[in-house]
Amino acid sequence: MDPSAARKAFIGLDIGGQSVKGMRLEADGSVSRRAARATPAASGAAAVLEVIAAVLGDLNPGGTGAAAASAAASVVAAVGVGTPGGVDREGRVVGEAANIAGWQGAPLGASVAKAAGAPSYVRNDGNLAGYAEWAARGGASRALLFVGLGTGIGGGYIEEGRILGGVDDKALEIGHVVVYPEGRACACGARGCVEAYASGPSIGRLAVEMAPRFDSPLARAAAAGEAINAREVYAALAAGDSLAAAVHATAAEALSRVIGQALAFLAPDCIVLGGGVLAGATTLVADVASQAPRHVYAAASRGVRFEEALLGPEAGLLGAALYGASFVLPREELFALSGRAVAALA
Amino acid sequence: MDPSAARKAFIGLDIGGQSVKGMRLEADGSVSRRAARATPAASGAAAVLEVIAAVLGDLNPGGTGAAAASAAASVVAAVGVGTPGGVDREGRVVGEAANIAGWQGAPLGASVAKAAGAPSYVRNDGNLAGYAEWAARGGASRALLFVGLGTGIGGGYIEEGRILGGVDDKALEIGHVVVYPEGRACACGARGCVEAYASGPSIGRLAVEMAPRFDSPLARAAAAGEAINAREVYAALAAGDSLAAAVHATAAEALSRVIGQALAFLAPDCIVLGGGVLAGATTLVADVASQAPRHVYAAASRGVRFEEALLGPEAGLLGAALYGASFVLPREELFALSGRAVAALA
Repeated sequence: MDPSAARKAFIGLDIGGQSVKGMRLEADGSVSRRAARATPAASGAAAVLEVIAAVLGDLNPGGTGAAAASAAASVVAAVGVGTPGGVDREGRVVGEAANIAGWQGAPLGASVAKAAGAPSYVRNDGNLAGYAEWAARGGASRALLFVGLGTGIGGGYIEEGRILGGVDDKALEIGHVVVYPEGRACACGARGCVEAYASGPSIGRLAVEMAPRFDSPLARAAAAGEAINAREVYAALAAGDSLAAAVHATAAEALSRVIGQALAFLAPDCIVLGGGVLAGATTLVADVASQAPRHVYAAASRGVRFEEALLGPEAGLLGAALYGASFVLPREELFALSGRAVAALA
Repeated sequence: MDPSAARKAFIGLDIGGQSVKGMRLEADGSVSRRAARATPAASGAAAVLEVIAAVLGDLNPGGTGAAAASAAASVVAAVGVGTPGGVDREGRVVGEAANIAGWQGAPLGASVAKAAGAPSYVRNDGNLAGYAEWAARGGASRALLFVGLGTGIGGGYIEEGRILGGVDDKALEIGHVVVYPEGRACACGARGCVEAYASGPSIGRLAVEMAPRFDSPLARAAAAGEAINAREVYAALAAGDSLAAAVHATAAEALSRVIGQALAFLAPDCIVLGGGVLAGATTLVADVASQAPRHVYAAASRGVRFEEALLGPEAGLLGAALYGASFVLPREELFALSGRAVAALA
């Protein structure tokens, strides 16, 4: 069998401090294989690259080349890779990654391409999650801003199918945009970053700090020293807790302010909120949609859609696979593949 | 003579509420013709489009087609057009322009192409000024942020030669990014926009408002009701005036804050400040370079260059011509043309 005639498959990889995850996406939108291995985060870049190669082996068990294509019925045409932090045009890691020792300078793109026997395309993981949300909408958005609210706050902006990367793919560090001058201290060293108000851990910390001013079940739990994170805050909010309502209002206002700034800087037509915080924060999209326009000139928010993410925790992984596919497939085929993949993952 | 063998020329147009300006840029970088006519801003879109056609006639006196090319020795290969506010993919004006009546919906691109007998490319004027600064650097910047400080504050962001436009080219409305929540009222209706602190008129207003707290020549001039704008403030600053120093510090801090936000959103490698305010504010680039990094996480500003604009008031006009040329010339030829044009205009 001629491998060029074989059906194509696309691999997505998500490199995290805890684990390296991968999926193999077939041209029909089905996920034929998944793999995950623990990241040896303390053992240096070479050890991490070996684990990544092993994950690729799990996803492509027949190996590479014509014989493998014949055996597997599909051939890996491209590998997309998401990694935290910066990455240069050659797929090399830029800057320090807080959670992988010695990761700076790792030749991630070249190493993946060699192990996979296919071209690799490495981007920042937040940008790829945004790419998945853009592709999943099949062309309904010309300029999409994605904001992922989890342990941190990340983002991605995709205009006409192109990821806004800036230098070394560092763009859309939206969690570290300052919304309140001299505001709350952020782990990044600055003050008043939106991440200090609206990430999952920050929502929990706000509840603990604001508790003394409230008399409510959540406030009493905080006073008793119980561990409180965004999940507890949103469970309490669902039960009508007054402290939870105040914490939510604080987080939603900070988020609305950064989205007001994003409207002036980027002029998206669609703003997508996703990430773990959304699981509990059922009114957050509507609240931000109503409040963000107050923080920017009127024409900036006219006609802008606010939507919840179509994808869950796998947005980055699917985004990596679809981004790889974008170098192989025409735009309309990419949209069709994206739609089938989203339906399959739902 | 075969017109396809003729030397190429590129026309840039700058549509303003006061005047329609044009330049004809030859392939050797020389400006062979200039034209300007008053904008009939109160007379509706059709009248403005007629004036634009007349300016094109001034720049292309032989008319269009083979005979004209033979007569003129160069043939207009593309026309770039800058206009305030939004513009859609078809070159049609989007949104209300404060200073041209009935401008919304005007078929600017089609009208220019017909009058010029050449393809037209219409973009927001701030974006095109940024494009000129990017092209003038001949590839030295991969991701350039331009901030123009004048009557208002506009901007442009160019990544790998592509203008970040957002929907309808509304991106980089950097003057209307909020830097101080509930800060000074801005003409746009929001509060705390950077334009309310660092535009030319705002710098003058700040001086008048802050004057009662100072005892200085500028403060006494303000108390006496003299008209004060940025020019007077910076003249006083050069003479060591204490009020002028405080006003400059206020403007520079607001500007540093919005650039801190821009670093997190966009990750440029080069930030260019331009516009009329720079004429007096001789330390502004250095002040912003030293202060902006305080308002964003450390890695965001590492290696970023802060530069003064290479072009003056003609940045938008030259940017329009070069943007048109970018659809005709290979990248290296565009850079060569840009360099010659900047030298010719200097």
